[in-house]
Parts: sequence; structure tokens; C-alpha cells
Amino acid sequence: MPAPETIAFADDILILIDQTKLPGELATLECRDIQQTHDAIKRLVVRGAPAIGIAAAYGVCLARDDAGHRSRDAYLHAIEYLATSRPTAVNLFWALDRMQSVLQSTDERELPDRLLAEAVAIHDEDREMCHSIGRNGATLLKGKQRVLTHCNAGGLATSTWGTALAPIYQLHESGEPIEVYADETRPLLQGGRLTAWELSQAGVPVTVLTDSMAGSLLRTGKIGAVIVGADRIAANGDVANKIGTYPLAVLARYHDVPFYVAAPSSTFDLTLDSGDLIPIEERGRDEIAKPFGLTIVPDQAEVMNPAFDCTPAELVTAIITERGVVTEPNREKLALHLA
Amino acid sequence: MPAPETIAFADDILILIDQTKLPGELATLECRDIQQTHDAIKRLVVRGAPAIGIAAAYGVCLARDDAGHRSRDAYLHAIEYLATSRPTAVNLFWALDRMQSVLQSTDERELPDRLLAEAVAIHDEDREMCHSIGRNGATLLKGKQRVLTHCNAGGLATSTWGTALAPIYQLHESGEPIEVYADETRPLLQGGRLTAWELSQAGVPVTVLTDSMAGSLLRTGKIGAVIVGADRIAANGDVANKIGTYPLAVLARYHDVPFYVAAPSSTFDLTLDSGDLIPIEERGRDEIAKPFGLTIVPDQAEVMNPAFDCTPAELVTAIITERGVVTEPNREKLALHLA
Repeated sequence: MPAPETIAFADDILILIDQTKLPGELATLECRDIQQTHDAIKRLVVRGAPAIGIAAAYGVCLARDDAGHRSRDAYLHAIEYLATSRPTAVNLFWALDRMQSVLQSTDERELPDRLLAEAVAIHDEDREMCHSIGRNGATLLKGKQRVLTHCNAGGLATSTWGTALAPIYQLHESGEPIEVYADETRPLLQGGRLTAWELSQAGVPVTVLTDSMAGSLLRTGKIGAVIVGADRIAANGDVANKIGTYPLAVLARYHDVPFYVAAPSSTFDLTLDSGDLIPIEERGRDEIAKPFGLTIVPDQAEVMNPAFDCTPAELVTAIITERGVVTEPNREKLALHLA
Repeated sequence: MPAPETIAFADDILILIDQTKLPGELATLECRDIQQTHDAIKRLVVRGAPAIGIAAAYGVCLARDDAGHRSRDAYLHAIEYLATSRPTAVNLFWALDRMQSVLQSTDERELPDRLLAEAVAIHDEDREMCHSIGRNGATLLKGKQRVLTHCNAGGLATSTWGTALAPIYQLHESGEPIEVYADETRPLLQGGRLTAWELSQAGVPVTVLTDSMAGSLLRTGKIGAVIVGADRIAANGDVANKIGTYPLAVLARYHDVPFYVAAPSSTFDLTLDSGDLIPIEERGRDEIAKPFGLTIVPDQAEVMNPAFDCTPAELVTAIITERGVVTEPNREKLALHLA
């Protein structure tokens, strides 16, 4: 578990670990208004579906109108504006919806206190969620010993233990042998930079590989399970997650390795019938073509940069939420699980 | 086809395009002795199985003993020394074996001329090989329109059109519509840096993607075929190629997309019964952890860095050589093809 809080809020300042600077530097960024919060989410200073939700909820609390007042209109504008920061993470909209509900049911004078209380509640629930996912997932991962993950669905993506990494922290704390293989996760290298960093901090053995090495690693038979997070899950169990998740699911199936998805129930978007309807964020050319400012793709070449892909439910062995485990997820089982 | 020659030899100097500097800078490196040649192969200034063979053959011609003489012993030492530069590319050993045969059958006085003639012959045969693979592969790729490739098996990996890219150049020159999607190919980004560069130079439309995007690209149904090169092929048709090739083969099979391997017949190593016996080069930590000198993996984390993986023959739709096409390759068909 990382020592500093991924997200903190005090004295009207939202304090975020600046994840764009890890692992080289452990720095924090202070957001004092909704523009700074929006920018921090967009630039991936804070990322990971649950963490985005928490940061956005606190961001709403920073709203002021032109006269500097905390008015209903200012909060409403903040909610609408922050909703445009990242399109795929449904927890963002879920958190903003909760803030919106408070906004609608509260006297204007009480809004600052009540909205802050709601943001704190979202944050607190997230911590509990992580530990519940940790306990539920540990029953599946126990004895697997070596686990492969993609991107960062750890403490840096939430408030504490994360989602996909929570069962790993749980097992590690119980003294069970557990070791993680982390895909580096191009283009933004969250696996190499963030997952490897936070697991190292916690003393969990971790090995980084390029995304292209996971196939031959799975073929060796060393890996007992693949576990990833999710940015949005459709009603039928299709999972949108960081680009590169879908090929891992295919490779896991091909090699008879269980493929687990760990996510809070706020990640489900039951308004979407299937994964085909999940909007996939396309990000800018330079993340691929000019990492760290160095040109690695000639200007004449095109670049594609979808931030997410969609894994069909039939490739998912089980979905782990704070409520429990749904094996071979489908529409009916998920409706029951979330009811 | 790239304008400058990937490999040239004149006045006792081996001149190589320095591929570590592309696409930012088109520079050449001059090798005047076997140490410089060994270093250029090891550092991937020159890479790609056929190009390594050609460069090593010319490298032998640069040998001199301590007294500066071109003696039989100096040449013998050069052959042994250059064989240690890269373990996986069998063309290296194939080219050095040819030089060795000349060495054994030639008077010492005639060695410089005869060895140079053999190196030139290897180079010339490679040019013809590329064009033959281009013609043979074009029959398979015609009408596919969009092709996915991994790493660089183009003109920069050989002397001219390359292997996997040769059918693409052939179709492009014939006016057939053909477009390439190129995996960037971490860790050393040969797809983004080299394949995209040389295809752009030739006017072939090319789109770069991270290795992790190939799965969802194949799922769209846009891609008509996957085509890659090979560093070594065992007697049963198992193919060693750049890390990330094997998962592409699994994904191609899963999405019913044909998976082609293009390589000269010198890439076959019939002494190896299956791919399990192909030695896989492990490269250094920093290629993964410190690209461009920037630390992207914390020091406490382990790193794995196999340069190649092995694709079993049953996932290969066809192998294309300068001699023709072997569909559904197996031991018997390949023995016949190479007889």
C-alpha cells in the first residue's frame, strides 16, 4: 500500500499524487478550482476509474461563480464541466450523479457542507470497496502464486488498495506467497511506472514486461491468473478497460488461464446493453508518436490511439466486486448481483 | 524502397544505415574492423536476420591480424568472433558458414578477393530473394487491402525490399491498393521507427499502433492478413521472430485472419527439430526500464526482456520463401520445399 494518499482534500484544496511524474518523482499537485481539476483528470495526473470519480466529486466542491460565491449554478456548471474530462470511466458520471442528487435536494446555504460530506462519503466508501474486493478476490487468487496484470488498477487508481491489486495486497498481508507480472502498458506505461512502483513500495515482488511479452509468458504455464480492473462494464458483462486488455483475455483463454476483472459496482453501466455501446476515448497522436518528447514515429505515418478496448463477457472467468464474485458473468447473473 | 542502401561495402569500409537513429536522423556508420562490425550488430545499428548475415559476411572481409595482415588465422578468428554478436538470427551463422567454406577451400593469397566475392554474392542473392518473396507473397496478399505487421522485416532488415514487406512493395508498385498497420514493437520500436519510416519513404500508407492495440484492430475485421518475418525457423515449421509475434499469431487465429511468415530459405535451421530448441536471446534491463535514458520502471522491480518468441507451426497459415509458398507448413512439406 503506497504511503501517501493518492487523493486528499483539505482546506479547500484537492491534493493529488501527480502520477505523470512517477516513478521518477513522488510529487503532489494541488487543485484549487474546477479548471485545475478538469485538467488534472484529462492529463492523467489522476487516473483509474474509481480515483477519477473521487477526484471529480471533490472537484465539484471547489466550484465558485464569477463573484467567488458557492452558488447552486456554480456547482451545476462544475458538474457539467467535469463530466467532459474523460469519456470512458463511468465512475466519473456515477460520482457526479451523486453530487447532482445532493445539489437537487439541498438548500443553497447548506450546499458547501452537504456536497463536501457526499464527496467524503464517496471517498470513504471507495476505501471500504477496495478492502471488500481484496477479500473477495483473494479467495480466487489464493494458491495461484504468480499473477499477470495490465495497466494500474491499484492504490493509485483508487483511494487505497485498488481493485485488481486489492486481492494481491490482501494475500501479501496474510503472508501468502504472491508475485505479480505487470505489463508496462503502452502508451502511458502505467504498469511499468505505477503498478511496479506501488507494489515495490508494499514489498510485493513484481516483474515488468512489455505488453508484447505476455503471450509467451502465458505459454510457459507460470501464470496462475490474469486480473485487471475495468473502466466501464455493460449490462451483459462486456468490459471496457485499458487498451491491451482484450488481447490478454484472448491469450488467457487460449492458454486456459483464468481471466478476472475486479471493479466496484459503480463501474457497471446498466443503461448499456452490451460493450459495443461503450464510448471508447481516442487520445492524441503524441502519446504514441512522441513519448517523452522524442519522435519515434515519422511525421508521414498515421497513428491510432484508442485508450480502451472492450472484452466480451464470454472471455471473463469472473467479475469481482465489493459485493462478491460473479463467475461466468452474464446479464441475468449481473442483474441479480447488483439488485 | 528506401533511397539509401541499408548495407554498402566499398574501399574496405562497411557502411551501414545507423538504424538506432531513425526516424529522427538518417545517418550512416562506417565499420573498418571486426570489432566495429560486432558492436554494430550487437547494438542493432544493423538488425533483421538477412541484414545481419550480409553485414557479418562483409565484416569477415575486414579481418586483419595483429601485424595488419589478412591471414587465414585472422579470418578464422573474425568468423568465430562475429558469430557471438547475436544468438537467435540463424542467417548470421549461415552467412559465416559460407565464408568459412571459402576460407577452407582457398589459397591464402587469394583469400581477400575470394571472401569479398562471397560476401558480395550473399548480398546480391539477398536482393533477388527479396524480389522473389515479393512476387510469391503478393499472390497471397492481393485483394487484402489492409495488412498488419510487427517489427521491421523490410528493406532495412535486408538489402532491399525486405521479407514481410516485399509483397507489400510488390503490390504497391503494381498499383494495387495496399495499406499497412505497423505495431510499434516495444522495446526498441522497430515498427514505429523503421517500418513506418521506410513505407512512408516509398509512399505506402502506414498507420502505427502500440502492440497492445492489435487485438482490438483485428476484432474490427478491417485487417485482411498478418505478415511477419522470421529470425529462425525449425524443421517442423515453428518460427522464432521478434517478441510479440506469437500473441499476434494467436489473435489472428482467434479472429480467422491468415497469418503469414516471409523469410529466405537461409532462415531455416533443419538441425532443430522444433521451436523449443531455438535459443531465445535475453537482452538487457535498460531497453525496458530506461528507454531514451528515462527511467520508466522503478529500480526495485524486476524486468524480463526476451528479444524473441516462438510461434508454433500450427498457427502459421503459410510460409513464403524465395522458392515459393508452403501452406499449413509441417516437417514433410518443408523438407520437400527446401530439398
